[in-house]
Formats: sequence, structure tokens, C-alpha cells
Amino acid sequence: MATTYLKNTLTPAIIKTIPEQELPALCEEIRSTLVTYGQQHGGHIGSNLGVVELSVALHYVFSSPQDQIIFDVSHQSYVHKMLTGRTQAYTDETKYNSITGFTNPEESEHDAFTLGHTGTSIAIACGMAQQRDSANKHSQRNIIAVIGDGALSSAVAFEGLNNAALLKSNLIIILNDNEMSISQNVGGIYDNLAQLRATRGKSEHNIFKDFGLDYQYVEQGNNVHELIAQLKKIKNVDHPIVLHIHTKKGLGLDEIDQQKGIIPGQCEANHWQNPLHASKALPARKYYGQLAMSMLEQRFPDEPTLTIISPATPRSNGITEDFRSRAGLHYVDTGITEEYAAAYAAGIAKAGGTPVLATSATFFQRAYDQIHQELCLNNQPATLLIFAAGISNADNSHSGAFDIAMLANIPNLLYLTPSSEQDYLQMLQWSTTSKNHETVAIRVPSQAVLQADVERNTTSYPEIKRNFENPFNTNTSCPFLQYRFEQKSDTVALLGFSNTMPIIRKAATILEEHDITPSIIDTLQCSYLDEQSLNDLSRNHSITLTVEDGQQSGGYGNRISAWLTCNTNIKAFNLGADKEFTDQIPMQTLLQRYQMTPEQIAQNILQHLA
Amino acid sequence: MATTYLKNTLTPAIIKTIPEQELPALCEEIRSTLVTYGQQHGGHIGSNLGVVELSVALHYVFSSPQDQIIFDVSHQSYVHKMLTGRTQAYTDETKYNSITGFTNPEESEHDAFTLGHTGTSIAIACGMAQQRDSANKHSQRNIIAVIGDGALSSAVAFEGLNNAALLKSNLIIILNDNEMSISQNVGGIYDNLAQLRATRGKSEHNIFKDFGLDYQYVEQGNNVHELIAQLKKIKNVDHPIVLHIHTKKGLGLDEIDQQKGIIPGQCEANHWQNPLHASKALPARKYYGQLAMSMLEQRFPDEPTLTIISPATPRSNGITEDFRSRAGLHYVDTGITEEYAAAYAAGIAKAGGTPVLATSATFFQRAYDQIHQELCLNNQPATLLIFAAGISNADNSHSGAFDIAMLANIPNLLYLTPSSEQDYLQMLQWSTTSKNHETVAIRVPSQAVLQADVERNTTSYPEIKRNFENPFNTNTSCPFLQYRFEQKSDTVALLGFSNTMPIIRKAATILEEHDITPSIIDTLQCSYLDEQSLNDLSRNHSITLTVEDGQQSGGYGNRISAWLTCNTNIKAFNLGADKEFTDQIPMQTLLQRYQMTPEQIAQNILQHLA
Repeated sequence: MATTYLKNTLTPAIIKTIPEQELPALCEEIRSTLVTYGQQHGGHIGSNLGVVELSVALHYVFSSPQDQIIFDVSHQSYVHKMLTGRTQAYTDETKYNSITGFTNPEESEHDAFTLGHTGTSIAIACGMAQQRDSANKHSQRNIIAVIGDGALSSAVAFEGLNNAALLKSNLIIILNDNEMSISQNVGGIYDNLAQLRATRGKSEHNIFKDFGLDYQYVEQGNNVHELIAQLKKIKNVDHPIVLHIHTKKGLGLDEIDQQKGIIPGQCEANHWQNPLHASKALPARKYYGQLAMSMLEQRFPDEPTLTIISPATPRSNGITEDFRSRAGLHYVDTGITEEYAAAYAAGIAKAGGTPVLATSATFFQRAYDQIHQELCLNNQPATLLIFAAGISNADNSHSGAFDIAMLANIPNLLYLTPSSEQDYLQMLQWSTTSKNHETVAIRVPSQAVLQADVERNTTSYPEIKRNFENPFNTNTSCPFLQYRFEQKSDTVALLGFSNTMPIIRKAATILEEHDITPSIIDTLQCSYLDEQSLNDLSRNHSITLTVEDGQQSGGYGNRISAWLTCNTNIKAFNLGADKEFTDQIPMQTLLQRYQMTPEQIAQNILQHLA
Repeated sequence: MATTYLKNTLTPAIIKTIPEQELPALCEEIRSTLVTYGQQHGGHIGSNLGVVELSVALHYVFSSPQDQIIFDVSHQSYVHKMLTGRTQAYTDETKYNSITGFTNPEESEHDAFTLGHTGTSIAIACGMAQQRDSANKHSQRNIIAVIGDGALSSAVAFEGLNNAALLKSNLIIILNDNEMSISQNVGGIYDNLAQLRATRGKSEHNIFKDFGLDYQYVEQGNNVHELIAQLKKIKNVDHPIVLHIHTKKGLGLDEIDQQKGIIPGQCEANHWQNPLHASKALPARKYYGQLAMSMLEQRFPDEPTLTIISPATPRSNGITEDFRSRAGLHYVDTGITEEYAAAYAAGIAKAGGTPVLATSATFFQRAYDQIHQELCLNNQPATLLIFAAGISNADNSHSGAFDIAMLANIPNLLYLTPSSEQDYLQMLQWSTTSKNHETVAIRVPSQAVLQADVERNTTSYPEIKRNFENPFNTNTSCPFLQYRFEQKSDTVALLGFSNTMPIIRKAATILEEHDITPSIIDTLQCSYLDEQSLNDLSRNHSITLTVEDGQQSGGYGNRISAWLTCNTNIKAFNLGADKEFTDQIPMQTLLQRYQMTPEQIAQNILQHLA
């Protein structure tokens, strides 16, 4: 029978007062609360359902924040949040938005870090343990990293395992093995995990021991009593230990939920759950992803070496299960391994193949060095598809506003910035068919661009086009280096690219109501300056305004301004995002903050002309 | 008896014609050539001495470039270069500078990539193997990655091992185990390697097998016959295999060499060997490193949690063996693990410690995401000591010209840019003692700054200062955000920071000979604009010139220009490096190319005023 513990705000102190025999009922209540929360609000429900018992057991046995628990990537921290003072954020619909989807030090002393990128928990825990030991070598604080099996495929997690063994003091690494990454697990280590599960941790082949770590196994990772017993045994352990627990992702999503439209159990589809009331319309990100895959797939029969690479996140980028099942060797999931993926793409390109590496802007940050060195220093013609780039209401750990400063300043990299479906497809065709010797990144357009195409009737959205012509000969030099004048006028020039073009066009419409016809320029890319066009501009324009869908600092607008001021007599003004992290701030609020709405832009121009 | 094969240009085809019994003599000749080359020219001699036999055996058994050999980090590719048409570059003193110290596709078809950052060879090899299989599944090309044991500690190498197991076709990973990283090896995996060596590869604890890889062991890794026999066995293997060979770094550096000033054998000191004729003067990089360590060490007794972190490269940054032996828990070598090191520093800082993470600008690229997320998003007050930053004659894989675009555009990061020893020390004191809540990077000054300090008599160089006063209270807010006017004048303003200040001062001297007294401004940092100072400037200056020791694109000068043009009526001109990779180009040539010599700067100003 379900308890009613969640009627009150729970804390670690309260958890400890609950008789252990009642904990399974508490877990049941938490689980059903999560299911309801997922239906109403959406979120990373699957992973949280798998760690209900672990989270309860951790707070039952350990004393946070004295003992420190670091949740890797932290999307599985909902139960932890429920148990550390934020209960109502999951039980009271009106408070759903009072907290974020990741651990957050601003919310609670029980959250040490905001983490949204995978694999760093062990490194952080090692640092905290080091600091604990330096400050007081007799300290009995437990430092605990909770890391999923999927996260184990990532570079920094391996470095963590390798370095953890050096610590001569307490460190507990809880491996939450739910047999799933975001999609399926990828890599040789997962055969070893399977062996360890099959032998209940007794296999003599044990990668954790080979890293020099102590190791224990719990088969019933969703049995709170087993977990408590085991955690009590290793509490205050005086050396690093891996506790491998076997759990079930999505446990509690059953057939009843399925009738409500939720996909049950341990599957890719419940990595991220949309609320039931969410629009079923295909979002731009998945639409453009599917469109790209459709176009590339058409070429598979003739181009055996066209290879799509996705580091663990295919589904959110429109690389559907169906596509993958048809793609054979044309599709490779490398696991959560952006570093590897970029160097791997360089290898494919060097050997004559055509790699297309697709992931989010924020995750490309992890491959900065491999993009710089293996790809660009070596001039390898790989295509990077940059999803979720630009100003948005994303979580602060997933912001897409930093991509231009990161990518557009790397030598030998051409960052193409389509502002329409047609440009997007042409740019992708060009980068994957030409014999250029440059790494090309393509900024996948946003919802604003899709909306504009829908309004102009220049897309078949939501239908995914299936027949494509390749408009380029294989030896065409890059046709995107010259700025495109969408409208030629004088006095005022509005320059944009990518997702700001719809904004600029609207601003122009407002200006036209004031009898000012601005020039509208789409730069098409943000890596190089088209000095000829800028020079032309300077002849009959007095004001140039750049509008950039990303951080101004390090961005393209500043480069244009600097060039214009140095080489011409016209003034340029730049709009773009401030150099800041933003956390789930509505898009419209951000655009207003950055003076980037069409109305603000028009007003800005009018003031300058006044 | 030594052969004279190296009198002629060697190629893989020629190697194959040599009777196997003569190969040891060839190896002897190569080894003695390398020793001489090291004495005359310097280089990564130690690692190359360890792979003489491996390189010969590889080219004896395999057929490059049909079979593809990828040398990880590629500083051990000298012998490979000797055997692939570049023999005279090692035998003829006048041709020493005809080739680079890393593999280089521009030199030879036998070099697939230019690689200077560790750990990516397996990923690249996987990509090449994938491409081979896609293009022709019956291809018999061997793809071979040669990776050192030290490189195994790095993130992307682990991802490579994990993903390699997925390949169902030929891939040969040769683990060149010389029991050394750059310094000592770090991490739990090295105990496993030791076990494997001790058991001649027979230990049942085998991390490579646990990654799902086939495995074989060769104890006599410097016996060319053993290597040939083993390589013949695995040639054309139809699955991924690790061949673990035990070699000796520095083999052949003996007591005779020691008398000539070369440190013999398997030791940290022979990772990089200076030529005998090299100046023994302490270079700026090591001097500033030693100075920082000296200052921090003085505080160790009072600050148990002050922690210096070096990812594998202590020696080149002045973190001497002596210092390390005294530092205890205050010093941590994390192995070649920049990603881990940055997240680890975040953990230390969060737990209340004071981490100082020291490595080269080019290697910080690998930690871009962890600097962005774990440090800056989380506002962790760690100090990053950025060595070897700026325009230089470095190899193209080690350029320091990209640090400003990378670091100065990350929110919440303050990039301090000292232009004197005094500033450097004060900035380091401030970042490590204040309770600021920002990640601070400090750009370690270059030889130009040291030279200027020597000329001004404001350094005790080469003596390392031992007594320091801490000029800051722990609660002092940042004293480096306001630009410093070294000289206040009107009309012309020269703005610089870090290593360009000596250049600017000289340019000012030249201008003064033309009766123009410019203002000289040191911005002290390059993360934020001092709008007040820029505004003040605009009142009585008509020309502002920024001179930046790094890439202009994404740099600080462009930001200053953009702000000035938007907010004032003065013009700003920017100087800095082009967006390009440069390879061992003399500093003076680069400064001239970028119009950055004092004479060019003065001329530039005079023309503008004309």
C-alpha cells in the first residue's frame, strides 16, 4: 500500500527516521509520483525510475551534504531532489517549474554542481576527496560518484577510473548499470559489464579491478533493502571502490501508461519523455535531422563510404530507429564519445570516405581539440552537423549560444549557417560531395527558420522529402563565401545569418512602414569576411547592424565591425547574446534582453537615423 | 659491426631487400645516428631510441602506405621518417631542418596525419578501418596504430580502446610500453601493465581483453627478429588486436653520452633532449614556472589545500623534480588527462581547496568543455596557468596563438595577461588567495617579457626568488579590471597586454623620435572591456591601435574595436595573428607578417596621422 510521505517536504534527516520496512512503500509512492510528473511535465523519467531505490538508500545510509553525492550528468537526480527539500516540485503541478532538471547548487546544499555533460563525476569526486584529505586526513566524509553505464563510454569517465585508483582514501563510485545509454550502449566495455552481471560480479575478467579499483556487485539494484545493506558495508571505506548495481531504466512504466501514450520500460524512447499534452508536431531539430538523413540515404547505394556518426544522441537529432536499421555501415553510434568521434571522422575522411558527424552544439565543445587538430590542422573534409545551436531557453548546461565563438575562429574550418531549408540542403550536399579540403560545420536551422519556410511555403514540412537532386558538381568551389543580398538598398544595412534572418526580415518590414528600405544581407557563413561585399556596402550605407544568434564576444559581428572600422568609414553595430550562462529563460525574454526583437531592431535603426 | 645503409635514402621497398640477419646492424646504425642527431639538433630522442627495432620491423613486414601506420602523438616517428625517404634529414646536418618533428603528410605519403596531441591514433585508425571496410570489405590493408603506454592515460585513447572492439575487421594496436610517460606514468592501468609485463602477457587480469580486444605480448620489444616474427603472425589479422611490446625508452644513451652532457636511459629528462650547443640559460617558460612554484611553496605550511595539478608535463613548465619531491599532497600529476584535470580542479575548488592547473595553451584545448562546464558554469575559483601561449615558432600542432579566442570568450572566466614579473606574481597571488568566485586563467609571460624585465632590472632572473609577500587581503576584489595607463598622452593610443607590451613600448620610443607621444595602455586582462577607460580614451585620441599576441579572429582587439565603433567616434585598428596554422616559422617572420614589429607599428601610426 502506498504511503503518503510525499505530502510533506522530505529531507535526509526525515528519511532516516522512516522504518526500513516502510521504505519499499515510499519507493512505490515516489515511483508513481514520477510517472505522473512525467505525464504532466516530461523529463528524464526513465533514468530516474531506475534509481528510486538507490536514491532512497543513499540518503538513508549517508548524511548529505556532509557526505557528498555527485550525480554524473545529473539528469537522474529527480529522486534525490525529492528527498532533499524539493519534494513539492514533483508533487505540486504549480511548482513543477520551480526547479531545474539537473543538480543545482542554487537550489540546495545537497547539490554540489550543475552538471549536464557526461562523465565528469569521478574526476570531481576525486578532486573533492583530494581536498578532504589535504584539509584533514582523518576526515570521515564519504565522497560518492553515481555514474550510469552509458556514461562509462566517455573519455573523461575513463580518465576518472584510471586516476581514482591512485587515491588512498574513501571514494565510492556507484555504477548504475541499467544496460542502457541514451540509445543502446556502445563499446567493448559493455561485454565486460554483461559478463559481470551474468556472474553476479564474480567474473575474473573485471575492468574495474584492472584499473586497480576494489569492486562489489549488487544484482537487485531496485531492492532498497539490498542496497542499504550493501551501502552500510562500504560506508567509510578507506579506499576507492566501485559498487556495481544492476537496475532497470523506466521501471514502473507499464502497460497502463502505454495506453496513455508513454512508452514502457527499458528502451531508448523513454530516455526523454514529453508530457502527454505536448504538441506532437515534429520539432525543427528532428525535422532537419530527418531531412538530412533522407537526403544522404538516397546516396547510400552509390556512395558506400558515406558515413553518419552520432555520439550517442541519434534520436533527438532525427536519426530515427528506422533509418539506423536501414543504414548498415553507413551509420555508426560511437557512444558518448565526442572526442573519439571527431578523430574517427578525421580517419574516415583521410582514407577517402565522407563522414558526417552529428550532435548538439554544446556537446561539440568536448571535441574542440580534435576538431582543431585531427580535423582542421589536417584539413580533413568532414561535415559536422551542429544541432541545437543558438540562443534558446535551454538549460544552462546545454546552451547553444557558444558555437560561433568556438567554431568560427578555428583556422581551416568553414562554418556554414543556412537560413532556409533550401540553403541547408544545398550546403549539406556541397560539403559531402565536393572535393574541398576543409572541415565544414553546418548550423542546423532553428524553429524560427522552419516557421519562416512554412510561411513562405518553401518546405514540405512536416513531410520528409524523399527525392533530392544534387545541385553541385563534385569540383565546385564553395558557393557560399559571397554574402547574399536578399534586398539591395542604401543607407541602412542589416546583416544576419542562420536563425536571425527571419528576425531581420521582420525588422525590415517594420522599417519599410517608416519609409526606410534597408539592405538585407545573409552572410551564409560566419568563418570568413566577404571583404568585397563589405566594401560595396560601405559606399552607400551609413549604418550597418549585425544580428547574431549567439554570443557577441568572439562572434562574427565583432569581426565585421572591426574590419569595417579599420577599412571603411561606416559604422557597424552588433547585436547578439551577452557573454553569460542562461538557464531556461524563455527565448522571447532573451531576445528582448539582447535588443534582438524585430521591433527593437527597427527602433534602434530609427534612433540612429534620427 | 655498423652498416652504412643510412648513406643512401631508405624506403620501405629497400628495407624489404635487406637480409633479416643484417637488420640488427641497421638498427645499431640508426640508433647511433639518432644519438648524434640528438646531440646536434635535439628532439624527442628518448622515445625514438625505444622504437628503432619496432619501426624497422613494421616497414619490413608491412607495406606502407598501402598498410597504414598511425603514430600516436607522432614524436616517436623519427625512425619511421628515416625509413621512408627522409634519411638524410637525420644524417646530414645541413638538412636537419628540412623536416618537422612530427608525422607530416606534406613530407611523405607514409604520414597520414600531423599529430602532436596525445591519444587519438586509435580513433583515427578505427575511422580508416571503417572507411576501408565500407569501400571494399575484402580489402587486405592493415591499419596500425602505434601508441605509447603514457598515451594510454588519455581520455580519447580509452574511448578508442572501447570502440575498437566493435570493429569486425583488421586493426592492429601496437602498445609501445616503455614504462614511461613524459614523466612517470599515472593511473591504475599501469599496475595492470606491470602485471602483464611480469607474466609475459599471461596474467588473467588484462584490461585490453576486458575491453573486448584480442591481445598478444612481446617481451623483447628491442629485438628486431622477435618483432618481425610476431608482426608476421598478426599481419592481415581479421579482427582488432593489441600487440603489447616491452621496449626501453632512451636505449643507447649510455655513459659515453653522459660525459657529453646527455642524460642516459629511461628517465624523464630524456623525453626532450636539447642539443649540446644549446644555451643553458633558463628559458622564460621554466623560469616563470619555477617562480610560481616557489611562491606557492612558501604558502604550503599554512595552506594545506593549495594543490598544483600538472597533466603529465611538469618539467617543461618549471615544476622540477625537486619541487615535486618536497610538495607531497600539494602536487598531483594526473597523467595525460587535461579533461580529468580540469574537472578534478573543479572538485577541489568546490570542496574549498585552491587548485592551480598548469599546462600548455595548446593542451588546454582538450579541456575546453570541462573549463566551460565544471569550472566556469559552476563558478569554481580555480587558477589555470597557461604556458607557451602566444605567437611563436612552435610546431603547428603546438601553437599558442589560439588561447585568447578560446579562453577569453568563456563566460565567468577571467583571463589575466601579465606583462611583467611583478604583475605575474601579483595576479597569481590574487587568484589563489582571494575569495573570488570566478575561474581565473593566467597567461604565463614569454621570453619577450622576461627580456624586458631583465633590461629594466625588475627581476632577479635567473635566480628564483624565494621570499614573497602576499600583497592582497583575501577579500580584495579584482584589482586588474581597470586598464593601466603606462603613459598618458593624446591623439594616439597603443593598447596591448601580455607579451606585446615590450613591442608597444619600443614602438612608442620610435614614435617619440618623430615627436609623437602615444598613450600606452596595458589592459591587464582580455576577458572584459574597461568601458570607462575606453570612453576616456575616446575624448582626446583619434587613433587607437591594439596589438595582440594571438589570433585576431575571436580575439580581444576585435571586441575593443567593435565597442569603440559602436559607442564612440574614434577608430580602432587591430593587429594580431592571422587565422592560420603556422609550422616552425621564426617568430620574427611572423611578427613581420602580422605587421607587429615596433618599426611597422610606428610606421602604421605615422601613415594614419599623415
